[in-house]
Amino acid sequence: MSQEQAPTYARTPRTTPTRYRDRAGWERAEIHAILDSAWVCHLGFADEQGRPVVLPTIYARVGDRLYLHGSTGSRPLRAAGRPDGLPVCVTVTQVDALVLTKSAFNHSVNFRSVVAHGVAEQVTDPQELAVALDALVDQAVPGRAADCRPANPKELAATAVVRLVLDEVSAKTRADGADDDPADADLPYWSGVVPVRTVHDAPVPHPGTTRGLPAYLTGSRDGGAPC
Amino acid sequence: MSQEQAPTYARTPRTTPTRYRDRAGWERAEIHAILDSAWVCHLGFADEQGRPVVLPTIYARVGDRLYLHGSTGSRPLRAAGRPDGLPVCVTVTQVDALVLTKSAFNHSVNFRSVVAHGVAEQVTDPQELAVALDALVDQAVPGRAADCRPANPKELAATAVVRLVLDEVSAKTRADGADDDPADADLPYWSGVVPVRTVHDAPVPHPGTTRGLPAYLTGSRDGGAPC
Repeated sequence: MSQEQAPTYARTPRTTPTRYRDRAGWERAEIHAILDSAWVCHLGFADEQGRPVVLPTIYARVGDRLYLHGSTGSRPLRAAGRPDGLPVCVTVTQVDALVLTKSAFNHSVNFRSVVAHGVAEQVTDPQELAVALDALVDQAVPGRAADCRPANPKELAATAVVRLVLDEVSAKTRADGADDDPADADLPYWSGVVPVRTVHDAPVPHPGTTRGLPAYLTGSRDGGAPC
Repeated sequence: MSQEQAPTYARTPRTTPTRYRDRAGWERAEIHAILDSAWVCHLGFADEQGRPVVLPTIYARVGDRLYLHGSTGSRPLRAAGRPDGLPVCVTVTQVDALVLTKSAFNHSVNFRSVVAHGVAEQVTDPQELAVALDALVDQAVPGRAADCRPANPKELAATAVVRLVLDEVSAKTRADGADDDPADADLPYWSGVVPVRTVHDAPVPHPGTTRGLPAYLTGSRDGGAPC
C-alpha cells in the first residue's frame, strides 16, 4: 500500500511530540479535514542568514499536496525555485474555544492544528500550475475559480506557486472541557468553555457590480452562518 | 528619545518588505493595537538540525515585550533557556475579509499582521514571571487573572516563560476594497468584499460551577458581539 492511500501518515521524530502525545494525530482524514477547514497558513523558513521567518499566506490542499503562492519576486518563492527547493514548515491553526479553569495554570485552548514539514518546490508544469491556481481560489471561496477571469499570460508570469508534499505531517487537537484539579473544586471561580468561531458577514458588493450575489457566497464556512 | 518612547520602531532590512511596501508599517501604536487584538501567535524557530518549525501558541504583550509560555520540557522553551537564547520569529495574524475581484489574479485578503524578529530569552526574575503569567491569562480574557487561583510553587516550577523584546518588528495590513483592473470592468462577475470576523459564543459553564458568569465574560473581543 503506498503512502498515497495509507490511512495514516508515517510518524517521524519531529512529528512526534514530546508532550501531550494524546493530542497528536497522524490520520490522513483528520489532517485533511483540518486543512480543508481553513485557507490561511503560517509559512516558516530560514532566511539567508539561517534566521527563522514566519509569514501568513493563503494555501490550498489538493490530495497530498499543499500549494502556496506569491509573487515571483518574493523571497521564499524565489528560494523555493532553487534546484533543491526550500525547507519549510507550514502550520494551520483553528481556534475553537477558550477553556477557563479555577486555577490559572490549567487554563487551556481548544484548537485543531496541522504542522507539515518538508521541502517546498516551485511548480513549473503548466497543468499542475493551473490546478493549483484554481485550488488557491477555491480553498477560500469554493466555487469561485469557475466564476472569475482566469489568469492571463502576463499574470501567470508574475505568479509563483510552490508545492509541499504532505508526508511528514501531524495534527494536534484539544476538544475538551475545563480540566479542574479536584483540589480546586470548591474555589469560588467560574470554570467552563467559551466557544470561538470565525464567521463570514454579509458580502459587500464593489460599487458598480451589476451581478447579483453568487450562490457560493450565500452560505458560510466552519458551520457559522453569517450573523 | 529612547526606543521605548519613539513613535515608530526602527526599520531594518528584514522588516522592510521587498513588495507592497505601502502595506508595511512600523508605528508602535499600530503594532501594539494589532498585538492586543489577538492572543494566538505562530512561533518560528530552527530545530537542532536548523530546520524551520512553526508552532501556534498563546502570547501576551506587556509594553515592549512579548511573553510566550509553555512547559519547561518543551523543545523551544528549553532552547530559549540557553545563555544566548533562541532566535525566533513571532507572527500574529488577524484576517478581516476576503476580497473578490473579477480576475482570479487580483483576489486578495484584508488582514492585519505583525512579524517580530529577535532572540527569545527565558524569564527568571520572579516578579517579571508573575507579571508575565497574569498577562498571558489576561491577554485572552481581560480581567481573568485576578479572578482565578494563581499558580502554586509546583505549577510555577513546571512553567517556562520566554520574553521577546519588541525591537525588530513591523506590521503589514490591507484594508481596502476589490481592486479590479479597468479592463475587467465589464466582465459579468461579482466583485466585492466578504468580511471575516472572530466571535465568542455564549460561555458554557463546567458542570458543578456554582458561580454565575463573570462580567468579563459577558462582552466580546474584536468588536464582535456574540451571535
